[in-house]
Amino acid sequence: MKKLVVVALGGNAILRGDEIGTIEQQEENTRNTLENLIPMIKEGYNMIISHGNGPQVGNILMRNDAGEQLYGIAQMPLDVCVADSQGGIGYMIERILRNLLREHGIEKEVVTLVTQVVVDKNDNAFSNLTKRVGKIYNKEQAENLKKLKGWQFKTSPKTKDGWRRVVASPKPIRVLNEQVINRLVNQGIIVITVGGGGVPVYIDDKNSVRPSEAVIDKDFASSVIGAALKADELYILTDVPYVYLNYKKPNQQQLETINKNEAEKYLEQGMFGEGNMSPKISACINFVKNGGNKAVITEATKLTDKTYGTKIVLE
Amino acid sequence: MKKLVVVALGGNAILRGDEIGTIEQQEENTRNTLENLIPMIKEGYNMIISHGNGPQVGNILMRNDAGEQLYGIAQMPLDVCVADSQGGIGYMIERILRNLLREHGIEKEVVTLVTQVVVDKNDNAFSNLTKRVGKIYNKEQAENLKKLKGWQFKTSPKTKDGWRRVVASPKPIRVLNEQVINRLVNQGIIVITVGGGGVPVYIDDKNSVRPSEAVIDKDFASSVIGAALKADELYILTDVPYVYLNYKKPNQQQLETINKNEAEKYLEQGMFGEGNMSPKISACINFVKNGGNKAVITEATKLTDKTYGTKIVLE
Repeated sequence: MKKLVVVALGGNAILRGDEIGTIEQQEENTRNTLENLIPMIKEGYNMIISHGNGPQVGNILMRNDAGEQLYGIAQMPLDVCVADSQGGIGYMIERILRNLLREHGIEKEVVTLVTQVVVDKNDNAFSNLTKRVGKIYNKEQAENLKKLKGWQFKTSPKTKDGWRRVVASPKPIRVLNEQVINRLVNQGIIVITVGGGGVPVYIDDKNSVRPSEAVIDKDFASSVIGAALKADELYILTDVPYVYLNYKKPNQQQLETINKNEAEKYLEQGMFGEGNMSPKISACINFVKNGGNKAVITEATKLTDKTYGTKIVLE
Repeated sequence: MKKLVVVALGGNAILRGDEIGTIEQQEENTRNTLENLIPMIKEGYNMIISHGNGPQVGNILMRNDAGEQLYGIAQMPLDVCVADSQGGIGYMIERILRNLLREHGIEKEVVTLVTQVVVDKNDNAFSNLTKRVGKIYNKEQAENLKKLKGWQFKTSPKTKDGWRRVVASPKPIRVLNEQVINRLVNQGIIVITVGGGGVPVYIDDKNSVRPSEAVIDKDFASSVIGAALKADELYILTDVPYVYLNYKKPNQQQLETINKNEAEKYLEQGMFGEGNMSPKISACINFVKNGGNKAVITEATKLTDKTYGTKIVLE
């Protein structure tokens, strides 16, 4: 059987924070990122591609707000917004990847799945909402929306007196389409899935799949599908070539290969950025703990030279 | 090999014109529609489900307009909006169908594909834009948008002095994922695909897949994938139990079974509503002309009683 890799594209692989995010910018970024996957595909790896959706779903939520204000169009709940973003981003990745494959003379099919990911409705994350999403409101607007829609708010650290909706970020447990994804990758088809971490759903007491107003970390969801399908390698692409201890401090130290125990120790010691690098390390630990050979955190442009990147292994 | 059916859900299967389209309404409509597919699934048919996206992509376009006006968020092009709508609607159909299958004790996988459909960039439709999409503007706004974005406008028949963007509705030629869809349905997996007619793309001179600012008729796209995969039957679900000649006139005549030649003759004679029934008849003709056994136009609630519906056959 061929090696299977899961490649998780960071948000900035598609829409960079310093851009307004026109379609031209998103297409160029996507193409530049995907170009780096070609050597791996040429080597014959089977591949799952996942992607972030932070800026895009943020825009979709803002447009929902604006559409209701200006035109009275009913807002869609968060799960539908995430699904929308999987459609738009997945389509763009698939189309551009098809072109790159053709240019490189590679005959491979690509398919994009709209993917639901199961979370536990009793996950602690639902009693401690941490993930800020959508528009920055003032206090009065936030209180109105709380009454109207039951949304929860926290102050926005980026502004003096802004409030943002907060939602849970529960741990992904299982990808609903995992058996289908397995069949597809085993047939050599590149599968784009768990975009934005997947559409969060939970299983209710009657065994029904119900929508969950939450967002799932896309790196952790990637590690879950990777582990379930016994993938060999997980690549989490971000904007630094390595993970560092004491990042941007005088005693900054580049990590090359660390094992699960070391990674867990550093994590407990708070050596990584909370909102940024810690979840990536957790995803890598989850992957190697559940059968993955190697998880790598690096920049997309460093993929061709395999000496780069922080590698996390079991032992 | 099991029989394969393609079921095309009408726009009102999900969001009815007389509703504001809250998520609760969309979910209830979707559930009621899908319930009617259960007997067919129990009979052992393999199944492809497609769906309209008119009201939803209309809302997405309006939200794009509102988001740019209120918050300066870059608007996404039409192809991305269609892809977004495939994500949101496909997710909802898949989740609700999973629940129905479980309640009926049916063990079947369901998968939703984000689907690109190839059109001919030289299709006559691009020189005669007919499909009205998005917001109704006044004349000044329309002229501004024409200058700014190159959009074309026509007056809106629904208003006194409103203008709406018009886009092409080219004929679908080929579904990019047809081989993957074929494999999936042959494994008994229900595939939700060509939502909203598919994301329109064309193949440029360098053989690249390029986005097309157009919309594709979802019934015709359903007939194209049905014919390509040698499906046995195509069901186009709408809001009438039969197709009629002289619809709503004193001499109205219900059509039960007609062959391709009769259908073509009636179509030429303008016996069907231009914007509504004619494209459905064309889709049925295309299906039986290209190998399909039978195309049926009827209401979802009439599916269980197979005597209902207008059946179009080759001879």
